[in-house]
Amino acid sequence: MRYVVILAGGSGTRLWPLSRKGMPKQLLPLIDGRSLLRLAFERSLALVPAERILVVTGAAHAGAVQDQLPELPSSNILGEPTGRDSLNAVAWAAAVLRAQDPEAVIAHVTADHLIEPVETFTEVIRTAFALVEADPLALVTLGVVPTTAHTGYGYLHRGAEIPGFPGAHRVLEFAEKPDREVAERYLASGEYWWNAGMFIWRADTLLEQLQVLLPDTYAAVTSLAAEPDRLAEIFPTLMKTSVDYAVMEPVSAGRGTATVLAVALPVSWRDVGGFGTLAEVLSQDADRNSSSGTVVMRAAENNVVINTDYGSLVALLGVADLVVVRTPEITVVTDRDHAEQIKDLVSDVVMTFGDRFA
Amino acid sequence: MRYVVILAGGSGTRLWPLSRKGMPKQLLPLIDGRSLLRLAFERSLALVPAERILVVTGAAHAGAVQDQLPELPSSNILGEPTGRDSLNAVAWAAAVLRAQDPEAVIAHVTADHLIEPVETFTEVIRTAFALVEADPLALVTLGVVPTTAHTGYGYLHRGAEIPGFPGAHRVLEFAEKPDREVAERYLASGEYWWNAGMFIWRADTLLEQLQVLLPDTYAAVTSLAAEPDRLAEIFPTLMKTSVDYAVMEPVSAGRGTATVLAVALPVSWRDVGGFGTLAEVLSQDADRNSSSGTVVMRAAENNVVINTDYGSLVALLGVADLVVVRTPEITVVTDRDHAEQIKDLVSDVVMTFGDRFA
Repeated sequence: MRYVVILAGGSGTRLWPLSRKGMPKQLLPLIDGRSLLRLAFERSLALVPAERILVVTGAAHAGAVQDQLPELPSSNILGEPTGRDSLNAVAWAAAVLRAQDPEAVIAHVTADHLIEPVETFTEVIRTAFALVEADPLALVTLGVVPTTAHTGYGYLHRGAEIPGFPGAHRVLEFAEKPDREVAERYLASGEYWWNAGMFIWRADTLLEQLQVLLPDTYAAVTSLAAEPDRLAEIFPTLMKTSVDYAVMEPVSAGRGTATVLAVALPVSWRDVGGFGTLAEVLSQDADRNSSSGTVVMRAAENNVVINTDYGSLVALLGVADLVVVRTPEITVVTDRDHAEQIKDLVSDVVMTFGDRFA
Repeated sequence: MRYVVILAGGSGTRLWPLSRKGMPKQLLPLIDGRSLLRLAFERSLALVPAERILVVTGAAHAGAVQDQLPELPSSNILGEPTGRDSLNAVAWAAAVLRAQDPEAVIAHVTADHLIEPVETFTEVIRTAFALVEADPLALVTLGVVPTTAHTGYGYLHRGAEIPGFPGAHRVLEFAEKPDREVAERYLASGEYWWNAGMFIWRADTLLEQLQVLLPDTYAAVTSLAAEPDRLAEIFPTLMKTSVDYAVMEPVSAGRGTATVLAVALPVSWRDVGGFGTLAEVLSQDADRNSSSGTVVMRAAENNVVINTDYGSLVALLGVADLVVVRTPEITVVTDRDHAEQIKDLVSDVVMTFGDRFA
């Protein structure tokens, strides 16, 4: 049967102080009061019933996830005691599902992005499910047509099309975050897609690759699925690594027993990772100011202002190109050019105050 | 006997949101935890005992004034039911003191400025007291040597020196806030001082001038002194005007029975009216950032950051020349060039939210 696993780990430091240690980006009510997690869940519900959706998240956030997704059975929330990167989230969920259903086909989807139109997205996932059901050894990833030479994404080199599955191609090579020059070449060639970080495969096929490539990890997640009580003991021992590094790159290079395929994901796919992208989804005034919450601006242009401190006011006068965020505990003022470096600011804050404002 | 009257009216809108309707500038703990009022009171205590100090302030702030000046007898706080500009604050206090002591000599001092060194200030006031005690018809004002062609101050044209009183001169002319061109001429001539807005005179002499120049005001303040219960009835009927317009200009022009004199006030005399001046008295880092409260800055230059929201953090990243203020209810972000226009921002805020954030 088909399953969806929503990968909702990560903290989203670039949205600090909206995102905090206890409130990661995916859980913030950013989009008309709904979180990215809620949107990902609703996309998933178009594919499978709630009982066949799993959410992998930090253990500390399991309660908040349950609050936002009341339809989800609580046993379908896998809480990681510590972040061990994408491979282990994916492998743990695959092991759990294979134990329940040896024929399980899983779509691992992310909760970091705004995806439009949703119908196209679900159609592509259905194609990928069908592809895996036709070829049990397929490891399918989704490819987004690149619009810039972004150095923060992985790229995949597209090979021959798969007959009968429109938009599906073999993958010749997986390339993790290239440098600028290489990214420019990829973009110019027209032969590369961005790796959307979503994967569709049979649980057993994924786990069989692991058994070859990372036998320790395979043994650990198999044990975890059989003995959930050993979570706190086993999980921290897992090697921290990504699906791309541990599985997709070596298998696409011929090490492993599976075949790597990719399906085109022709959607608007925006990582709401920073304030720049967030601004695009907020209401905008005639002076190109984007704002949310109680805000007054005078002679101000092209600012992003977010006030989540209920009952308070944020007022701007005569300033441009700033990002201003007020939460109940923190006010941040930066500009659009520096907003991507917010992690450095958070480091300074943690150096001075420990975790108090983290 | 000698008395000091501290004029502590006004709201200080240019320091919004530090100053609020219920918390005027003079009462804010701006200077190492002490308010401008407290500093003015301590300067006054060097001249006369607390029993001979009066504070004129808005009736709404009488309680806060008492809290900050526990040494002051509560009957020495004159609470104005409504702001009627400087003349009426001065005349009311003079009428009250004349009723108690027909020989009263008063120094009316402001609480808007940072004055250094304090010793020079008190010495100048003592000279002015002595001048009035020698010449009962003297109306003495204090003159500051101008450093710029400021158009926000009144100017006084200095005449002959008074023998035996170093720094004391006759005043040839009083000129309220000149335009730029005139101010430049005053500055270039070397014959003009800024009017510091402080006055030393006998209560009866001031009131006798009023009796001639503004008989209605004279009658009203005399009634007020005799029948304090009629405050709410009488005070709002007073004509709103300044001491300079109503008394100093006409008397220096020969209308009246008194003589206008001025004593040099050779001190650093800074109006802490806006954030620019406030920045000068805050601690400064190597990147010329001035801050107060819990603040973190990274790659930030020449900013003024004030955080009075206890327990919160204000963090700046990659910005310059800004003024950032966080209070428990309000965050304001502007730049040093616009900080003087904060009144316009407050108007916008009041238009949108009424008095809620005023």
